Amino acid sequence: MMDNGGFCNDNYHSESSDDELVDISDVTVNFSEDVPPLDRDYSAGGCKANWRPNNSPKLIDLMDDTVPGIGTYEDFNTIDWVREKSKDRDRHREITNKSKHSTVALLFSISDAFSGWLLMLLIGLMSGALAGGIDIAAHWMTDLKEGVCLNGFWFNHEHCCWASNETTFQERDKCPQWKSWAELMDGVSEQGRVNVLNHFMYVSWALLFAFLAVILVRAFAPYACGSGIPEIKTILSGFIIRGYLGKWTLIIKTITLVLAVSSGLSLGKEGPLVHVACCCANILCHFFTKYRRNEAKRREVLSAASAVGVSVAFGAPIGGVLFSLEEVSYYFPLKTLWRSFFAALVAAFTLRYINPFGNSRLVLFYVEFHTPWHLLELIPFVLLGIFGGLWGAFFIHANIAWCRLRKNTRLGHYPVIEVLVVTLLTALLAFPNEYTRMSSSELISELFNDCGLLDSSKLCDYTGNSGSTSGSVNATAANGLGARLAGPKLYTAMWQLALALAFKMFITVATFGMKVPSGLFIPSMAVGAIAGRLLGVGMEQLAVHNHERDIFRGWCSPGADCITPGLYAMVGAAACLGGVTRMTVSLVVIMFELTGGLEYIVPLMAAAMTSKWVADALSRESIYEAHIRLNGYPFLEAKEEFRHKTLATDVMRPRRSDPPLSVLTQSGMTVEEVERLISDTTYSGFPVVISQLSQRLVGFVLRRDLFISLENARRHQDGVVSVSAVLFTECESPASPGAPPAVKLRSILDLSPFTVTVHTSMEIVVDIFRKLGLRQCLVIQNGRLLGIITKKDILKHMAQMANRDPESILFN
Amino acid sequence: MMDNGGFCNDNYHSESSDDELVDISDVTVNFSEDVPPLDRDYSAGGCKANWRPNNSPKLIDLMDDTVPGIGTYEDFNTIDWVREKSKDRDRHREITNKSKHSTVALLFSISDAFSGWLLMLLIGLMSGALAGGIDIAAHWMTDLKEGVCLNGFWFNHEHCCWASNETTFQERDKCPQWKSWAELMDGVSEQGRVNVLNHFMYVSWALLFAFLAVILVRAFAPYACGSGIPEIKTILSGFIIRGYLGKWTLIIKTITLVLAVSSGLSLGKEGPLVHVACCCANILCHFFTKYRRNEAKRREVLSAASAVGVSVAFGAPIGGVLFSLEEVSYYFPLKTLWRSFFAALVAAFTLRYINPFGNSRLVLFYVEFHTPWHLLELIPFVLLGIFGGLWGAFFIHANIAWCRLRKNTRLGHYPVIEVLVVTLLTALLAFPNEYTRMSSSELISELFNDCGLLDSSKLCDYTGNSGSTSGSVNATAANGLGARLAGPKLYTAMWQLALALAFKMFITVATFGMKVPSGLFIPSMAVGAIAGRLLGVGMEQLAVHNHERDIFRGWCSPGADCITPGLYAMVGAAACLGGVTRMTVSLVVIMFELTGGLEYIVPLMAAAMTSKWVADALSRESIYEAHIRLNGYPFLEAKEEFRHKTLATDVMRPRRSDPPLSVLTQSGMTVEEVERLISDTTYSGFPVVISQLSQRLVGFVLRRDLFISLENARRHQDGVVSVSAVLFTECESPASPGAPPAVKLRSILDLSPFTVTVHTSMEIVVDIFRKLGLRQCLVIQNGRLLGIITKKDILKHMAQMANRDPESILFN
Repeated sequence: MMDNGGFCNDNYHSESSDDELVDISDVTVNFSEDVPPLDRDYSAGGCKANWRPNNSPKLIDLMDDTVPGIGTYEDFNTIDWVREKSKDRDRHREITNKSKHSTVALLFSISDAFSGWLLMLLIGLMSGALAGGIDIAAHWMTDLKEGVCLNGFWFNHEHCCWASNETTFQERDKCPQWKSWAELMDGVSEQGRVNVLNHFMYVSWALLFAFLAVILVRAFAPYACGSGIPEIKTILSGFIIRGYLGKWTLIIKTITLVLAVSSGLSLGKEGPLVHVACCCANILCHFFTKYRRNEAKRREVLSAASAVGVSVAFGAPIGGVLFSLEEVSYYFPLKTLWRSFFAALVAAFTLRYINPFGNSRLVLFYVEFHTPWHLLELIPFVLLGIFGGLWGAFFIHANIAWCRLRKNTRLGHYPVIEVLVVTLLTALLAFPNEYTRMSSSELISELFNDCGLLDSSKLCDYTGNSGSTSGSVNATAANGLGARLAGPKLYTAMWQLALALAFKMFITVATFGMKVPSGLFIPSMAVGAIAGRLLGVGMEQLAVHNHERDIFRGWCSPGADCITPGLYAMVGAAACLGGVTRMTVSLVVIMFELTGGLEYIVPLMAAAMTSKWVADALSRESIYEAHIRLNGYPFLEAKEEFRHKTLATDVMRPRRSDPPLSVLTQSGMTVEEVERLISDTTYSGFPVVISQLSQRLVGFVLRRDLFISLENARRHQDGVVSVSAVLFTECESPASPGAPPAVKLRSILDLSPFTVTVHTSMEIVVDIFRKLGLRQCLVIQNGRLLGIITKKDILKHMAQMANRDPESILFN
Repeated sequence: MMDNGGFCNDNYHSESSDDELVDISDVTVNFSEDVPPLDRDYSAGGCKANWRPNNSPKLIDLMDDTVPGIGTYEDFNTIDWVREKSKDRDRHREITNKSKHSTVALLFSISDAFSGWLLMLLIGLMSGALAGGIDIAAHWMTDLKEGVCLNGFWFNHEHCCWASNETTFQERDKCPQWKSWAELMDGVSEQGRVNVLNHFMYVSWALLFAFLAVILVRAFAPYACGSGIPEIKTILSGFIIRGYLGKWTLIIKTITLVLAVSSGLSLGKEGPLVHVACCCANILCHFFTKYRRNEAKRREVLSAASAVGVSVAFGAPIGGVLFSLEEVSYYFPLKTLWRSFFAALVAAFTLRYINPFGNSRLVLFYVEFHTPWHLLELIPFVLLGIFGGLWGAFFIHANIAWCRLRKNTRLGHYPVIEVLVVTLLTALLAFPNEYTRMSSSELISELFNDCGLLDSSKLCDYTGNSGSTSGSVNATAANGLGARLAGPKLYTAMWQLALALAFKMFITVATFGMKVPSGLFIPSMAVGAIAGRLLGVGMEQLAVHNHERDIFRGWCSPGADCITPGLYAMVGAAACLGGVTRMTVSLVVIMFELTGGLEYIVPLMAAAMTSKWVADALSRESIYEAHIRLNGYPFLEAKEEFRHKTLATDVMRPRRSDPPLSVLTQSGMTVEEVERLISDTTYSGFPVVISQLSQRLVGFVLRRDLFISLENARRHQDGVVSVSAVLFTECESPASPGAPPAVKLRSILDLSPFTVTVHTSMEIVVDIFRKLGLRQCLVIQNGRLLGIITKKDILKHMAQMANRDPESILFN
């Protein structure tokens, strides 16, 4: 229908046989789940005076009449939530009814009821295992860029030195078994050459990984690129993107995610992990009829899967569930909340069992702070919030501008070259600076860390620690860490961090949206953590140098830490992540789960609130919404209220200058006329009225259903010719003798289409569309059908009211 | 309209001048927030051929026409969410428009935007302070039943002995300053007399407290009784109960809650604290126009307040927010989630600042476990879940039966005597058993507690601790606590606990629903904690005695604890609470916040899941829903799906045998005819059609609005007499000369009533009502109006389908 316009694959099409998101089109639908419950004898205006049903509870036996394909959707189309939910209820009802009659059916009914939980368990196990695998592989390959372990090439740096006896506690990351590439090649080492060689190897590996990643994505699964969250949001809102959650996407995304992360590009694995978890969920759904056949039920499972993704990314199950609720999901009933929580927990514990970080910790960045914060510190925290908000707005603006440039110019034709150039730049610039050379998550970990007694990090070089390079542990402890005056190494570190900050800020803009899997949680957090640590150390030095001043005296008694720079890093990370994604509760809860201390919620909350306010003041959209809009997906944002004073009549089609609405009459049309209407128009459905004159609404029929039914009738029903009548009525009108048999299509007619009046204000219409998940809605006045409003019409209208291009909405 | 049917005050009416939940009826509504946006020139079928608006964006100037009282609700009626939300959007639009023109208006607009946050801050502070006060007062008065502090009567037992120098670490709760009543009176002590005297004093104080509580409730605020959560759920779903959240209810509930808790009745303060927080919120709403004037916005604030209530009750802000989301709220947009979280945090920190427990802890029951649990322990945990589910089902069934008895027999006429009898029974039976004499929260605290090295509690009397009464700490430590064989005191404690369990189980049934404030979180948790601890100790002894067996060898190495009975108590508490309230995620998160260890989520989750499944299998309703149904409130449960295969036509009125639907025509009726229709019928609204013949729908007008408008026209409009025409059309029909002036009522006409067709299945109708918060919906077929469905009709239909009495639904 349209090209498959994902933002990262707008230039080439998928040639692989991706598993389809929806694969029911080729399955014979063997119960009448796709017709409205119609087992009653209704007359539709005219042929019987009595409109009431003569309550005959016939059992569902329309199933034989059902034509395959009816009730399915085309690619890049919106689903009808109401119909899908009805289908599920019908199905449930049927199972419950049957279960009263036989034991087998009862067992089936019970297993059906528990299949949701089983599915959640499987999703949790599979996603947890995959996440563990990705962590281990990425860790090893990241270290491979710098060197190799002689005990076995499959050990990463940390493992290699743990296994070694010659590792001292002071220098945990140095051991003879771990050789950098230069050591391995040169034998002896001349400092300059070693550096150059190491740098060269680092860049080469990075380029190799990045090249492999982009080639694999291009060749096998174009949908595997990017973070995936914008598309998952759209899918969850009721859109069909076939293959987006298929098995090829899963396999390629898992592999290329490892490659992309290892290549040292400024990207994270958190967003893609959500995509991976959703792929797992979608594939596992195929084993359960309940979920395979129903788009609405499947989306419930996908909502839970996105909670699983965040849960394994950060080790924060509660935060993951809230993330899914707040950020990703569209339709999130409470039952799903409970199941999501279960799946998220299973995944978190699976990951912990695999233990990829080797520390039995559930969380990605485990921190423990000991010093309470002082009320006045809220000022720097709010400053960090402002920084985060500004950065978020800048990042979104710059990234969207860059993506638009890529989309509209020749730049977009060379995705491989683009990736290689960015990787080359990143690797070249990153290597000299220790804080950009290490992986972003290591960096964040180090920045969050509070300086303990035994820390040998440069960031903990305080003069209180004077002898830290050679002095004994006891001496340091005796010094009490009290003075906390910055040592020379700390100053160096500050400079390096400042450079790293500038570098990360710009390279991330270019990285997000390239044709490799790329998440932006980690890069955003890294930017914030650096800024926070810088401010934290600054505040600390200010306090230490001025501890006699009144303002600091209260909260900075000499001989004790008074400011925790690690906390500042954490607050900064939260602020920047909040600025980019506009998360609120879930952000704070994820961060809370990392520290575990309720005390630190207040700084996090202050920063997250400020950041969101500042960023919202500059631009309303989060990065995900911006990307959804960039790609023209039909996403009706549930969070933002429509506040314009327009009415349904301003939005509905046909407009004043248009030809009148294309409608079918319930009787009196021939097969040929209907077919001509189908071929002459592109509408995805037609209202059915009693007569062209009265325009009194009977129902609504979908183009796809109509087309399939007519084709089926022509093929399989005897005597159907072009002049056969098409009847949507229940009763047969007295046909003239000798006329060809009529095609009766009442079974595909939706007799309860949603209607609003011309006077209904658009804010209410938008609310109805959002809450009920409609595809279209008919507009009537005083009982006469006047027009139709589709989801696309609403989105176009909203774009227009916001002074944006209404043509940017591409899909139905 | 009906009597004020709260379940605990169905026998007497409030005579106090309670603050009204809704007090806008006497305020002049000075902008047109209550008319649908109508500033356009619409014609309604007939007088103009062109139905399109001639886009004239007139500014809202209908405000002068608005009659006071229009757009308000009567007591015990359902609000119209759609209208309320429209009103708020209109208001917001007006402020935004004005803010473009002047600086003052801009400042007003900004302060308006932030007023929500300010309100949350105030609610948090006020609720936190009140909760702190309640805790301190209840603690002191509970101890007062047993004795008094000589250093000052205002010290409670713990404080009294802390202040004393003569307190030893071993016997923290014994000091000479604290005198039991017997000691104070007799001087010397003969054991038998002392006991009798203490028992007598205990019972007397309990009776005094309970008497005061019930008298205060009866005299000043009948709504202050019970837990309040069922009513708050109903109010949040869009019901009006005037005075339920007023200042008298707040004052009386706060005071009587302290009295009721102190009297030693088997009740908790958690549910009532939610009510108290909601009262605070409602009262504070009066200071903010935005919230005072809008029922929908006010309910957002109340949702946040119920999170605050749980947050201060348990010190669990995240759990509180999830509780509000899962259990209490109906309409919970994400903005509210974020604000609730803020308010819950503020409240929790206010409470911590007040520090009522004297330990700087945020949470009510702080526990720290050290021993990991073994996978096989899931079996006893699931058993506890089954127990919890069974108990929940039993409790709900018994309590509802008891409440029904109270309601329908003469028992209900003597609430004071009932309270006194139950108190007497409770106090008499509770005193001899140490575990029932202490307050329920102390009991839970003790049961949750893991036996540390220094514990002198009877529950920690292990033979490993052989010398615990006299032995030194070091000796105990050297013994290593390894054996963990139960000592004789532990066996005594087990017996006492078993008796306490039986006592609590029965007395709680009689207590919940009496005319005093009573929550059931704590009693439910106490029952579960006792059962859990019993099972835990049993398991522990089993493991200790059989530590050589294969099954225990793996997880029970000698010399180390292998089973934590405190964890069992916690799991049991969660299971029982879950069985009664059917909470899921919020329950687990609240419990998680108490321990802080993610490891223990899995046992809690297993128990909560089992408990919910077992309880749901026995009866579908939680205790709150059961009480809502008992009181006949119009509550449309959002969680349960409607699964019957009925259609709108089966539910709508008029039924086949009824007289036809009472409708108004848009023109051609006189004032007298309309007034007669109003007085002849009791419907709360009337559809307006073009003509009786065509039955083509124009709009819907509310009875109250119509009544007020006609009365107003008769009074203030010149020349209006009984034969004046009532016109709902936009244009004036050419009246015969000399006819009296017409009453034009188009401004009160809702031109966009919700409609469904006769064929719409009820599951969809129910969904629409729930999601959009409708009061009524019109039923049409082929453009003809056929009937109407109200929320009450739906609830009656649902009751009928579930084989319940449809007449139990009392309110609209």
